[in-house]
Amino acid sequence: MTATPPIEIAAIPPLEERAMAEARAHLDALTKPPGSLGRLEELMVVVAGITGRPRPALRRPAIVIAAGDHGVARHGISAYPTDVTGQMVANFLAGGAAVNQLAAAAGTEVIVLDVGVAGPARPGGPGSGGARLVARRIRGGTADMTAGPAMERREAEAAIAAGGELAAQLVAAGIDVIGIGEMGIGNTTAASAIVAALTGRPPGDVTGRGTGVDDAGWRRKVAAVERAIAVNGPDPLDPVGVLAALGGLEIAALVGITLEATRAHVPVVLDGFITGAAALLAARLAPGAPARWIAAHRSSEPGHAVALDALGLRPILELDLRLGEGTGAALAIGILRAAVRVRDGMATFASAAVSGPAGR
Amino acid sequence: MTATPPIEIAAIPPLEERAMAEARAHLDALTKPPGSLGRLEELMVVVAGITGRPRPALRRPAIVIAAGDHGVARHGISAYPTDVTGQMVANFLAGGAAVNQLAAAAGTEVIVLDVGVAGPARPGGPGSGGARLVARRIRGGTADMTAGPAMERREAEAAIAAGGELAAQLVAAGIDVIGIGEMGIGNTTAASAIVAALTGRPPGDVTGRGTGVDDAGWRRKVAAVERAIAVNGPDPLDPVGVLAALGGLEIAALVGITLEATRAHVPVVLDGFITGAAALLAARLAPGAPARWIAAHRSSEPGHAVALDALGLRPILELDLRLGEGTGAALAIGILRAAVRVRDGMATFASAAVSGPAGR
Repeated sequence: MTATPPIEIAAIPPLEERAMAEARAHLDALTKPPGSLGRLEELMVVVAGITGRPRPALRRPAIVIAAGDHGVARHGISAYPTDVTGQMVANFLAGGAAVNQLAAAAGTEVIVLDVGVAGPARPGGPGSGGARLVARRIRGGTADMTAGPAMERREAEAAIAAGGELAAQLVAAGIDVIGIGEMGIGNTTAASAIVAALTGRPPGDVTGRGTGVDDAGWRRKVAAVERAIAVNGPDPLDPVGVLAALGGLEIAALVGITLEATRAHVPVVLDGFITGAAALLAARLAPGAPARWIAAHRSSEPGHAVALDALGLRPILELDLRLGEGTGAALAIGILRAAVRVRDGMATFASAAVSGPAGR
Repeated sequence: MTATPPIEIAAIPPLEERAMAEARAHLDALTKPPGSLGRLEELMVVVAGITGRPRPALRRPAIVIAAGDHGVARHGISAYPTDVTGQMVANFLAGGAAVNQLAAAAGTEVIVLDVGVAGPARPGGPGSGGARLVARRIRGGTADMTAGPAMERREAEAAIAAGGELAAQLVAAGIDVIGIGEMGIGNTTAASAIVAALTGRPPGDVTGRGTGVDDAGWRRKVAAVERAIAVNGPDPLDPVGVLAALGGLEIAALVGITLEATRAHVPVVLDGFITGAAALLAARLAPGAPARWIAAHRSSEPGHAVALDALGLRPILELDLRLGEGTGAALAIGILRAAVRVRDGMATFASAAVSGPAGR
């Protein structure tokens, strides 16, 4: 592993008002009552503000699925064995997962970033009809956060850097909107711990059933989160320290992707609870950044609503999704692209000879 | 105008349980925690129950925009002049409206059914790159509902029949999901009157700002609804009488489309407030039918939430849309088709060699 510079806190400038005003003026000239397309119009104004361009194309979206395993999974906090993380990575590469189908429906490519899957490493490259793998494994899963730090600080920094490097490559290649997703058995437990540590909310308030644990499993999750926080005593003012204490490697990579895309003025589409926890960490490292993110949906995990509230983001969709992978991000990218079509394909009142509102 | 048989009340059978159980079993075999795709999975179960087939293709969706004018528009209850109804029909046919773009994004064709536009009639047929026009004008707009019935009972029946005939043709041609939309300056006022008449709610509770009237315009809308109900005294137990009293012709056509598609076991996707009012009327004519409809979204019109509650339908989207035309239906059909892709394109736990939940 190469040494990475320590992560610094850097404020992000506000949305670019001039591009937003131009976007609004264009939308108001289209053959519809002003504002009548509601959030579709708001989204077009927001992406103008993020990119600094009145009508960004959003023609080349990508979803990055960061993948990693979690030592805490040994405590019976998931309905699935840890082998499933690697098996699902193979499924993404083969095109058999939900996110592959939803991304294809939205014309979106899928990239899997392995920063921390346990088990045999596989070489990077294109999958058989599905996602492309970027192999940047920092370590094969985190340590058990209930017995000490999930990873070393330099490992958290390396995973953030791996995410940032991938985002920079994607932006350089012309990707103009990045959805983020994740895979990692045990990662709702890590996300609950992060949200509890950063917001001060009791673990029981921000812990859900993840992939579908029963009551006893839920109690084990809450206990694991409580123990991890008690054992590590993470400092909420030190986001990288929180990551090192609680994990996971894929959540750290999501922080890096989000920060780099934000700096590059590329819209980031958050998915569910785990990406929400990553966003909460990224927001502590880059104050002002959440205005440049789009929340795809609100999942049925209770901690997700807490994270979205803390970020000040209103989700586009509420479909009771709780799968992760980037599935909600893919659906939201589909909505964004439909909004772009409306923005660019509709007639204006003048071009279609339609009378405008009375008195204008 | 040919004579049409009077509309009778006919109960609709419940959703087909066997197809739904097969749909559920298939969804649970896919490589995701059971139920983790939330409403996408529910929608796939519902369409199985509607069609009686475990995996209906939903490969040929259509959106029908019923169009008609409203005599009540003379009272200054819209931000737009009545000419806009015909102008927007031309815009739909040319492909310049929001619904054209959103329907194209969802792979959905658009058909405009003119049952009551005022002004020069145009012949039916394909538009220039946009929608196809079905010219079945019953009369050129309704009469002013604040001075007496909006139309004669036989005209309401003829408009219902025109909608039913079009739906039957579409189903015969292989259309397997029908979204409904509308165009008609003044039709949020008619829809408010219908919802008030059927639910007994005060007009002020179910009247919004439509295309964007100011406070004075809103008060004129409420006054028009109150006067129309006082003058006509519509009987909520006589849905066709309510239609004749309050209009409009396009709302009557939507009732006919909805009833015929329902009888043919084809899913109907409702759009916004006006289609919600039509659905409320259709539900009185066909008890049990709402279980076979899909509510695309909840608009920002206050009467829409009232209509959806009365129908017992939970919308898929909440995007603050208030345009109508079928724009919300188009977005929801996009979600439905993405769900179909997931259902049919995903690997199963067995095929992808992914371990299932522990203990299964």
